[in-house]
Amino acid sequence: MNRYMSMAFELARMTAGQTGKNPAVGAVIVKEGKVIGMGAHLGYGKPHAERQAIASCSESTEGADIYVTLEPCSHYGKTPPCTEAIIEVGISRVFYAAKDLNPKVSGHQVLLDSGIHVAHTPDAIIDRFYAPFFKHLVSKRPNVTLKCATSLDGRLALDDGTSSWITGEAARSDVHNERHQHDAILVGGGTLLHDDPKLTARIEGGGDSPVPVILLGHGELSDDQMILRHPKRAIIYTTNEANLKYSENYDIRIGEWPLDAILEDLYAQGISSLFVEGGSTILTSFIKQQLYDRILIYIAPKIFGESRHTLYKEQFSSMEESVHLELIDVEKLGSDLKLTYGKA
Amino acid sequence: MNRYMSMAFELARMTAGQTGKNPAVGAVIVKEGKVIGMGAHLGYGKPHAERQAIASCSESTEGADIYVTLEPCSHYGKTPPCTEAIIEVGISRVFYAAKDLNPKVSGHQVLLDSGIHVAHTPDAIIDRFYAPFFKHLVSKRPNVTLKCATSLDGRLALDDGTSSWITGEAARSDVHNERHQHDAILVGGGTLLHDDPKLTARIEGGGDSPVPVILLGHGELSDDQMILRHPKRAIIYTTNEANLKYSENYDIRIGEWPLDAILEDLYAQGISSLFVEGGSTILTSFIKQQLYDRILIYIAPKIFGESRHTLYKEQFSSMEESVHLELIDVEKLGSDLKLTYGKA
Repeated sequence: MNRYMSMAFELARMTAGQTGKNPAVGAVIVKEGKVIGMGAHLGYGKPHAERQAIASCSESTEGADIYVTLEPCSHYGKTPPCTEAIIEVGISRVFYAAKDLNPKVSGHQVLLDSGIHVAHTPDAIIDRFYAPFFKHLVSKRPNVTLKCATSLDGRLALDDGTSSWITGEAARSDVHNERHQHDAILVGGGTLLHDDPKLTARIEGGGDSPVPVILLGHGELSDDQMILRHPKRAIIYTTNEANLKYSENYDIRIGEWPLDAILEDLYAQGISSLFVEGGSTILTSFIKQQLYDRILIYIAPKIFGESRHTLYKEQFSSMEESVHLELIDVEKLGSDLKLTYGKA
Repeated sequence: MNRYMSMAFELARMTAGQTGKNPAVGAVIVKEGKVIGMGAHLGYGKPHAERQAIASCSESTEGADIYVTLEPCSHYGKTPPCTEAIIEVGISRVFYAAKDLNPKVSGHQVLLDSGIHVAHTPDAIIDRFYAPFFKHLVSKRPNVTLKCATSLDGRLALDDGTSSWITGEAARSDVHNERHQHDAILVGGGTLLHDDPKLTARIEGGGDSPVPVILLGHGELSDDQMILRHPKRAIIYTTNEANLKYSENYDIRIGEWPLDAILEDLYAQGISSLFVEGGSTILTSFIKQQLYDRILIYIAPKIFGESRHTLYKEQFSSMEESVHLELIDVEKLGSDLKLTYGKA
């Protein structure tokens, strides 16, 4: 990666998770070998990285180069097009790493047409960074991240169900960071009724809690669920009409909802990323129906031995049939590991 | 780590696995800010790193500093003491990272007594590097590495037993490298009779195959076992006297051998490192009896689902009772992972 693009990417990563539906973007303006401006998109509805970078310059941008992690936008959204700003201030060369797959964006062409030198300089790491933001444009469903914490021998809990504190503090706080970066968080009725989780994103300085989504099945809510105090209104999919009495507190959706219909329904409600925390029946369904984009596994340095609490509830009769994934990332969190997999 | 010590450690790592019972050691000689010599111990019975480094110098070592990863030896073993060489060539300062725990070694004191400035500059990474070499001096048993390859959900095989090609080529070749670095390799009778493994170290340019050790139980050998063609004579622990007819080919040891007695017996035969490859009954026994130093787990990017082929065959009734490990190292091998754990 070119060093200025690398700086721009650093800027983008600093705001990952705080830009809502928008991807995080960074931009660096260079003139005569000097960085004369830099900026990042700081939040949904706020100025884009290119405008932030331009605004940060204290000398003329006439004839300067701009390095942007993502193709500059050319349409009016919450803010006016970046291409306009780039053209206005006399920047002469634009380098961008990732192509914007939104059909409304054709910044490359617009800039070319106005006589600016434009280069698409793709980079695998940056492409991977943006992949989640574009996927749903095609699939019309939220990007789905499945998450679980297991022992080294793949158990979600001891056989008696004990599962608290599998992983250490760094891994648990990483989970809150992941929640913060997702629009919604989904758990099954078993997890809700058995563990009564808060489902909030508790990160330093606040954090943006995802919308709780519960696949309750035939279960029945009660008056003292922790999610009652959740800052966002939970969406409850259930076959049990008795739950309608909580319609004031929750968005109760009665019926037999197949998983793909639920994802479509959530997407229609503006949810473009979903964090699925379990339990294992839920995880198995998402995996089996191939309705996921990433699987995050936090592995604790423990051996739990024989236990019925396993990640995947079905059997395979041949190696080819088993679920094949691709290792995307590995991170050490103390003595725990965070493994990120995608589909193979 | 000081940069010269870091260089010495680089040299040591280059010969890891080829020095037999001896630890790999590197040495760098520095004079007036210039590296004037460097060397590593290249093999058992060959000159030590200090002597190699001294021999590599083309200018006077008078007044020079030497950085060695391990305390210089002061006793006659296969080679004369390094302290003598250091004193002879007029080196004035000795820096070493790891203390030699062999009671016969007191290089620090010997050098001090001859008026040389000696500094023990310990480093956690280097200490960890040498730990396996000293452990057996205290425990009087081989250092034991347990190895297994699992799916992401902790299964050694599909429920029907299919386990071939769990991991990819890089992981499999790493296993051969591990075998090469161990004096002996151990498997249970089930693995021997069911899989008929070669148990050799097949690495580029040859490799040193470990002595095969089989915990055969009451099983019976046959005339066509692959280990018959193994370059080293296998040691077979068995309760079945019918196996005595293979005494010409193997070292047959009849009786009820508890694991710790087997380890003592192997140590008495000069085996100071043991690589245990399974199956799971064997792995469970070693883990349960705490007879291991490292656990290596190769994790494939696959989900196997429900399967009776699990790493650890027993249950725990509380989190405290479960096996607690410490994550020592993580390595990506293609889409597989190599995780190294020690006891917590």
